[in-house]
Amino acid sequence: MEELKVLAVEGGRLPSVSFKARGEKTVLVGVLMRRFRVVDLSWRLIEIDGLDATEKAIEIASDLPSPDLIMLGSVTCAGFNILNPFKLNEKLGVPVIVVVKEKPNNEAVYSALIKHFPDWKERWRVFEELAEKAPIRHVKVEEGNPVYLEAISISGEEAEKTIKAFLKWGRLPEPLRVAEIIAKGASRSLFKTLGLHG
Amino acid sequence: MEELKVLAVEGGRLPSVSFKARGEKTVLVGVLMRRFRVVDLSWRLIEIDGLDATEKAIEIASDLPSPDLIMLGSVTCAGFNILNPFKLNEKLGVPVIVVVKEKPNNEAVYSALIKHFPDWKERWRVFEELAEKAPIRHVKVEEGNPVYLEAISISGEEAEKTIKAFLKWGRLPEPLRVAEIIAKGASRSLFKTLGLHG
Repeated sequence: MEELKVLAVEGGRLPSVSFKARGEKTVLVGVLMRRFRVVDLSWRLIEIDGLDATEKAIEIASDLPSPDLIMLGSVTCAGFNILNPFKLNEKLGVPVIVVVKEKPNNEAVYSALIKHFPDWKERWRVFEELAEKAPIRHVKVEEGNPVYLEAISISGEEAEKTIKAFLKWGRLPEPLRVAEIIAKGASRSLFKTLGLHG
Repeated sequence: MEELKVLAVEGGRLPSVSFKARGEKTVLVGVLMRRFRVVDLSWRLIEIDGLDATEKAIEIASDLPSPDLIMLGSVTCAGFNILNPFKLNEKLGVPVIVVVKEKPNNEAVYSALIKHFPDWKERWRVFEELAEKAPIRHVKVEEGNPVYLEAISISGEEAEKTIKAFLKWGRLPEPLRVAEIIAKGASRSLFKTLGLHG
C-alpha cells in the first residue's frame, strides 16, 4: 500500500464571468502520488460543460508514470463535463475509485442535465452505469462526516481499505486533497492571467 | 516549526524550441506548505531570461495566506531571470532561505551574464549582495550529498535547523521538493498546450 502509485484527477474552478458562456475553459489536474508523497504532475485545459474531460485525463495519464490506481473526486468537473470512470478503467487498465464528501444525488443531477443539456443522455448514461455497477459505499472516517465511494475493478472492501490508508489531513485521501488544492489554485491563477475572475 | 507556513517558489523548465528566443515564457510556481502538508498554490508566467520573476513571486504571495518564511531553490529561474531574495524579504517581511543542491558558482554565473546580457550589472548585483550578506552554508543531510543554503533575515544556524525539520523525502526540504515537481510538470503541460516541446 505504501508504494501504490495513485493518480488523482481533479477539475479546477469555474471563472465567475463565464457562468453562462460555454466554451470557456478551466484546468484539469492530475497528481501522481505514492501515498503521502507527491511524485509528478500534469494538467490540461478542459471546456466548461464540455465533454472532453475523460480524453484529457487519459492524455494527462500518458504524461506520467503508470499508476496502480485512479482516484476521482467526482464524476463531473468543470460544470457538467464528465470524467467517465469506466472509460478510464478500460483505457488505463487500473481500478478507479470515486470518493466524494457529499452523498451522490442522482435525481438532482438528472434534473440539471435534462434541463440544460440537449446531449443529456450521453452524460446521464455514466451516472446510470455507475449506479448499476458500483454501488455507493458509505465510509466512516475519523474526522466527523463520512465520505462516499464508488469502486470500479476493485471490491468495495478493498477500495475502503485503500482510501483509509491514504488519509492524513482531513476526510479525503491525500492524493485527492492535494489534487483539489492544486486544481483550485491553478485555475484561480489561470483566470488572473486571462483577466477573468475565479 | 510544525505549523510554520512556508512559501516555496520555483521556476519551470525552458521550452527546448525557444532556447535562443527571448520573450518566450514558462511558469513560476508558489506552493504554500505547513511542513509536509500542501496548503495552497498559485502560479504566474515569467519570461525566459527576463527580469520579471521577483515581481511575479510577489504577486503569487499576494494570492496566498501570508507565509512565515520563503524558500527558493535558486536565485535564477527561467534561464537567467532573477528571484531577488532581498526584495522578497523587504516586500513580504519574512526571512528567505535559498537552498541549492550544487555549490553556487559565482564565477560561472558572472561569465555567462557578461557574455549574454547587456543588462548584466543589474542581475549580477543580486549575486554580489548575496555573497556579501548571506555567506554560503554547507549543510550535511542524511541522504549522501550536502545542500548549500544562503539565509536572509534569519541566522545560518536557525535556517539550517528549519531546513532539516522540513526534510522528508530526499535532500530538499519538502516545500521545495514539491514546488520543483509541480513547476516541472506544469511547464511541460504548458508547452504541450502551446505546441512547444519542454
